[in-house]
Amino acid sequence: MGVEKGMNLDKIVETTKRIDSFLLSNLKGEPSNLYKAASYLIEHGGKRLRPYLVIKSCELLGGSINQAIPAAAAIEMVHNFTLVHDDIMDNDEVRHGVPTVHTKFGIPVGILAGDLLFSKAFEVISNSKIQIPKVVSLSLVVALSKSCRDVCEGQALDISMAQSKTIPTESQYRKMVEKKTSSLFVASCAMGAISANTTQSDVNRLSIYGKNLGIAFQIVDDLIGVIGDPRITKKPVGNDIREGKKSLPILLAIKVAKGKEKTAILKAFGNLAISKSELGKAVETISTLGIEHTIRKKASYHLDTARKSISKYDNSAREDLLSLLDFVVKRSL
Amino acid sequence: MGVEKGMNLDKIVETTKRIDSFLLSNLKGEPSNLYKAASYLIEHGGKRLRPYLVIKSCELLGGSINQAIPAAAAIEMVHNFTLVHDDIMDNDEVRHGVPTVHTKFGIPVGILAGDLLFSKAFEVISNSKIQIPKVVSLSLVVALSKSCRDVCEGQALDISMAQSKTIPTESQYRKMVEKKTSSLFVASCAMGAISANTTQSDVNRLSIYGKNLGIAFQIVDDLIGVIGDPRITKKPVGNDIREGKKSLPILLAIKVAKGKEKTAILKAFGNLAISKSELGKAVETISTLGIEHTIRKKASYHLDTARKSISKYDNSAREDLLSLLDFVVKRSL
Repeated sequence: MGVEKGMNLDKIVETTKRIDSFLLSNLKGEPSNLYKAASYLIEHGGKRLRPYLVIKSCELLGGSINQAIPAAAAIEMVHNFTLVHDDIMDNDEVRHGVPTVHTKFGIPVGILAGDLLFSKAFEVISNSKIQIPKVVSLSLVVALSKSCRDVCEGQALDISMAQSKTIPTESQYRKMVEKKTSSLFVASCAMGAISANTTQSDVNRLSIYGKNLGIAFQIVDDLIGVIGDPRITKKPVGNDIREGKKSLPILLAIKVAKGKEKTAILKAFGNLAISKSELGKAVETISTLGIEHTIRKKASYHLDTARKSISKYDNSAREDLLSLLDFVVKRSL
Repeated sequence: MGVEKGMNLDKIVETTKRIDSFLLSNLKGEPSNLYKAASYLIEHGGKRLRPYLVIKSCELLGGSINQAIPAAAAIEMVHNFTLVHDDIMDNDEVRHGVPTVHTKFGIPVGILAGDLLFSKAFEVISNSKIQIPKVVSLSLVVALSKSCRDVCEGQALDISMAQSKTIPTESQYRKMVEKKTSSLFVASCAMGAISANTTQSDVNRLSIYGKNLGIAFQIVDDLIGVIGDPRITKKPVGNDIREGKKSLPILLAIKVAKGKEKTAILKAFGNLAISKSELGKAVETISTLGIEHTIRKKASYHLDTARKSISKYDNSAREDLLSLLDFVVKRSL
């Protein structure tokens, strides 16, 4: 992911400014090299989508931004910890337009910076300096540790899916996305709700919102990876086919395609040397197969489910959470 | 570390058996490859010294082994997480006589296995299945997250100390050991005390015990690394000098040595091609300088401090904790 540009970004940045100062003040310490590595990505970008979700979920239930700050910071720390470690696993050298943490600081300090962010995330939601009830703190820890476990499982599924020679089923893909991507969205919304200190039913509703937002987000991201959107995402048309990514549109297309169509897709799949015209043919085939329509229908279903899950609330935070759903669809137009 | 053989091991193994089954049952899940990697080191060895400290600290204060189990498992998970990640940072290929986790499962799964152990550690002390009061759970989280942060800082200090061309001062060395090694001993004892649900004074006393035990442990380990103890540790005489480790005896020796003595030590320091006789000369020089005596005095001071910190208690757990102090000294005889 990484395509959260558009109408909502200014609002997100404005809302999460106070999280940033809390975040960075909690990432100062010795040895300074380690703390610089841990705060490096946070200082160099990121859209704070997850802290925004924490704050809005908390506000939806009558809570204040002050109540949401520890959870919002913890989620952003965990999100960054996953980015730092994922970049090492994937040998990625650039993120947010700057060198990745391990490229700049070396792999050992990169691993440690991730571990430090992990530790700090649990520290900021449990220490006595924060003004939240102990029972709320403990519920935050439960939600955060479960989502960290899910993210690890999801990343492991993603690695084994990428290494496998077979094309995953939609249900395998779905499980991976729910764990790897969606679980931090669930945790963001659930922890926002928990911070507002209301009821388990509220937490459940917000979790449904977060889960479905996360899945829709990833599905749309997958679609952009195939149909391309150079204006917004800088991903060229057919990029994910060429790179052999087992994303939803590709695995659906391979499943339904037959004869020449299947040959055209499989020829381009994972073929870094493919010509532009042949890649274009594969993309066109996927489009002809009606995959784009299917994907958009799936995304709409999840966005509707998310919308309904917060229909009983009625305040400005609800409007913000609904706008965020629109934003997810619009970025693929 | 890794030389905890001798009189106490059987007792430790016997006491911590129940921790093992709790630990391993909490490390089952999907994808199985990830869970296998996370439980691999635990299944292949380790002396459970830290879980033993948790249990004995809890029993010292009138708590039961049942109360101590979640904290004991969490500490062992964190200890193993640090081993898995440290082995990647240090490019170590063997531990407990078997391939290291990343050597067997690859670096990506190695990193993830460490992250999973980290997540699980917080899960086992916070989830509602365990029968401990919520306020105890939260205190455990506070203690554990602080010690995880300390371990990261300590490991970063160790890396930068190893990379630096200068010899560290004793106070720099001390700070590193307190963070990297001692902090998990502190957390073990503090979390055992917290699990017994008594007073902050009890937690403080046990923390002093753990801190001083940890420092003595590391100091003695450092001494063995120089004077050697092939019988017990399989470390040959002078091993740490040859490998250029900036351990306490070596940095003290370099500080006080002059003229020919200094030359003999510096010639051997970090010189993997040094002859056995020249290495022997360096070790002898360190001995002549009275370093061994100085180190033993320092270790004794910490062991005495640890002993005194639990002098007000009077039960069999105290005897066990005192025996553990003796054990630390004896393994260097």
